[in-house]
Amino acid sequence: MAKQQKPRRPKAQPPKGFRDYFGAEVTRRKAMLDAIAHVYHLYGFEALESSAVETVEALGKFLPDVDRPNEGVFAWQEDDSDWVALRYDLTAPLARVYAENRQTLPTPYRRYAMGPVWRNEKPGPGRFRQFYQCDADTVGAASVAADAEICAMLSDVLETVGIARGDYVVRINNRKVLNGALEVAGLAGDDKVAARGIVLRAIDKLDRLGADGVRALLGAGRKDDSGDFTDGAGLSDDQADTIMAFMGAGRETGAETLAALRDVVGDSTVGAEGVAELDQIASLLDAQGYGPDRIIIDPSVVRGLGYYTGPVYEAELTFEITDEKGRPRQFGSVAGGGRYDDLVTRFTGQAVPATGVSIGVDRLLAALAAKGRVADDIQGPVVVTVMDRDRMADYQAIVADLRKAGIRAEVYLGNPKNFGNQLKYADKRGSPAAIIQGSDEAARGVVQVKDLVLGAKLAEEASVEEWKENPSQSEVAIADLVPFLRKLLA
Amino acid sequence: MAKQQKPRRPKAQPPKGFRDYFGAEVTRRKAMLDAIAHVYHLYGFEALESSAVETVEALGKFLPDVDRPNEGVFAWQEDDSDWVALRYDLTAPLARVYAENRQTLPTPYRRYAMGPVWRNEKPGPGRFRQFYQCDADTVGAASVAADAEICAMLSDVLETVGIARGDYVVRINNRKVLNGALEVAGLAGDDKVAARGIVLRAIDKLDRLGADGVRALLGAGRKDDSGDFTDGAGLSDDQADTIMAFMGAGRETGAETLAALRDVVGDSTVGAEGVAELDQIASLLDAQGYGPDRIIIDPSVVRGLGYYTGPVYEAELTFEITDEKGRPRQFGSVAGGGRYDDLVTRFTGQAVPATGVSIGVDRLLAALAAKGRVADDIQGPVVVTVMDRDRMADYQAIVADLRKAGIRAEVYLGNPKNFGNQLKYADKRGSPAAIIQGSDEAARGVVQVKDLVLGAKLAEEASVEEWKENPSQSEVAIADLVPFLRKLLA
Repeated sequence: MAKQQKPRRPKAQPPKGFRDYFGAEVTRRKAMLDAIAHVYHLYGFEALESSAVETVEALGKFLPDVDRPNEGVFAWQEDDSDWVALRYDLTAPLARVYAENRQTLPTPYRRYAMGPVWRNEKPGPGRFRQFYQCDADTVGAASVAADAEICAMLSDVLETVGIARGDYVVRINNRKVLNGALEVAGLAGDDKVAARGIVLRAIDKLDRLGADGVRALLGAGRKDDSGDFTDGAGLSDDQADTIMAFMGAGRETGAETLAALRDVVGDSTVGAEGVAELDQIASLLDAQGYGPDRIIIDPSVVRGLGYYTGPVYEAELTFEITDEKGRPRQFGSVAGGGRYDDLVTRFTGQAVPATGVSIGVDRLLAALAAKGRVADDIQGPVVVTVMDRDRMADYQAIVADLRKAGIRAEVYLGNPKNFGNQLKYADKRGSPAAIIQGSDEAARGVVQVKDLVLGAKLAEEASVEEWKENPSQSEVAIADLVPFLRKLLA
Repeated sequence: MAKQQKPRRPKAQPPKGFRDYFGAEVTRRKAMLDAIAHVYHLYGFEALESSAVETVEALGKFLPDVDRPNEGVFAWQEDDSDWVALRYDLTAPLARVYAENRQTLPTPYRRYAMGPVWRNEKPGPGRFRQFYQCDADTVGAASVAADAEICAMLSDVLETVGIARGDYVVRINNRKVLNGALEVAGLAGDDKVAARGIVLRAIDKLDRLGADGVRALLGAGRKDDSGDFTDGAGLSDDQADTIMAFMGAGRETGAETLAALRDVVGDSTVGAEGVAELDQIASLLDAQGYGPDRIIIDPSVVRGLGYYTGPVYEAELTFEITDEKGRPRQFGSVAGGGRYDDLVTRFTGQAVPATGVSIGVDRLLAALAAKGRVADDIQGPVVVTVMDRDRMADYQAIVADLRKAGIRAEVYLGNPKNFGNQLKYADKRGSPAAIIQGSDEAARGVVQVKDLVLGAKLAEEASVEEWKENPSQSEVAIADLVPFLRKLLA
């Protein structure tokens, strides 16, 4: 028998995997987005804000998680017909928008976009189902000058938001070179799609598994520390050697790396084309002064996404942070992208070349926080306390004057009965100063100003004598309040 | 027999009722949001960005469309359990966030929030299912000083974004006064909920139907121009007179209006309380200099939402625009809000007073556009054209220098074969200038600068002689390019 359920109160919590952002978390992210948009804009990119909801057919199946192409989005069916979903990135919507508006948009179309995206994935610690991306893409430019430009811009963005040169590197590779290596290894045909997929994912795990682990995955397979076995691509030693040579082609200089890659791709036409493109990108960047201290060619970069067709790139932060177990580790990737010449074709049937980058804003914010490079906590408002409940209009007039002078200020609007609560509130808000005016002060046209920053300092350090002098409290004439506070806040 | 369907290309369009925003549309809205946030911040409000997705139980059923309380949201069921939905406003999420974090948040909690909200409504012309709101609320302040503050802030916001004083008015009323009038009219009891609902909706239609139309809806009902009949509340003449007297209590001055309202509510305790609150709000605003040229007491304001419990307010733009049929009409409401003391109680069981305003940012932008008060179109980048495909690195170096000097610039990245297309592109981008450098110019260390703004002017006005002089094109030494362009762009 079903028990009768009591009506209950709704739970005050967001859905699993979602979170809220408060005060400085919001304003810090906004400052970062503004700084990134400034650089994008300087490079000639235009803003685009596409709708958060797309038809499922327009989104297509390009989720990063190649193992679950049918999952990963939040989707629902419209009353009458179509399935729609929340966007999972900003690239699929761009392809739809460009295909829809290609007659009126300029070509090439440089656009930037920023905003939340949603992934219907299993939430975990620090892993949320809504997060920000901040993208820039050039649609309709076949030249790898567009890829080079985006890599240069990515470097500029990182330095603009506070990552010092030397603390990051932008790595570039080219899918065509990988395809050349696969061709040389005899993995080119349509019947080898599955094996190529395993190879791609194996290379992508180099960071985590090391060269030996990848080698095992290219061959028979790999047993991990827990004893679990992952099937390998089943390549012969010769085949695996080719792939390992590709991955390991990185050298001291770009020219040496390119030479090593030329060796790997041998007679492959697509491979040679890829190496030539990398060469061209390197020259373009060199001409603008972006040397290997900022941007390097790195054959180990493959990027997980299946839709890339040419240059791929990612930005990695190279400084060490301490992980949750206290061990030092590199911070890792904060941005990535590449050339995807087929996404618009899905809609139009015409080839439209495109390339672009996506910056993981939340990860970049975390990196700056880890380096102690975020702004100090934002200052709270000056709080005008309420001594006489009947004189609320006077207190409101005081804050009105302060705001007119550009000073952030408010009257305490809670229950004024307990004065201590008013000062506790000011503390909690991070207020720099509290204003106090009783009837005596009002009659004399003055207020008491409590310097809460100095007060907190004195509370920790001051002697009894210093306390008695009470240097953190000053009587100030109403007419002098604005200049007095300006000095205190400076 | 089912026909075999051909595989087809996805349609390149957003779901019905959704749209995209391009370039200046995005940056203008951003500029407005920044300006509003600045005022909110100055008043002591803190940013909050809650998740876009909420559990359906947390959202509750408070949609503005009281006739369809179960509809209007985009909702779906999570794999394992809960129904979740996209937020339909920013108030319901605030109530959830405050209930969840009430131990750690300061009280009163002043917060502002801005972002898209979603309504699952029938789309129509100019009516979209995703739009921006920009809210400020004070939670935990029982004093009507909090309501007065928000009305003052709303007035400041409108003037800050470019609505001149005299072109708007903030109207204030109080649900308690309405409840007093309903009590006097004998409509107070629990058994009169339906009648009260009809009365509320009738008053809300005053703008559209006029006093006679409302009166008909209070009584037997109303036949509209198309012959359709709407049932009325079935009030007696005396009852209807009381409601009409309430609505029509607006007088020349606030004091006279308050006196008229006192007459209407007679012996009703709640009514008298409401009038006293309005009186207090008026005094507080008066003390800060917000007179009836900005904020007035207007008994015809009721606001549709069922959850308001005290003061309600809205901002109306009073200038005329021309509607789609060429007739002049007032622009109307762009913001509204009020006191809702019960929303947090749903979660906690404890009474938590709250009040706040929501600004319809898209409507406000439309109003500014209608008044011709939006910034001119944003200037496009300087476009460096490609004369010699092989010298792409040189062109990239030129734009790199311009960007370093803070000048928005880009190299043309389309197919450079047809030079006319490059200039057409620059026109389409709204570029102020195009840079041209062939091998001859390169050898001499100069570029040609085409002033596209002047060029467009000449194309319309110039004589043959003026054309021949070609004053819109100048040869400039590379070393002088930055100062030359700075002057041209100024």
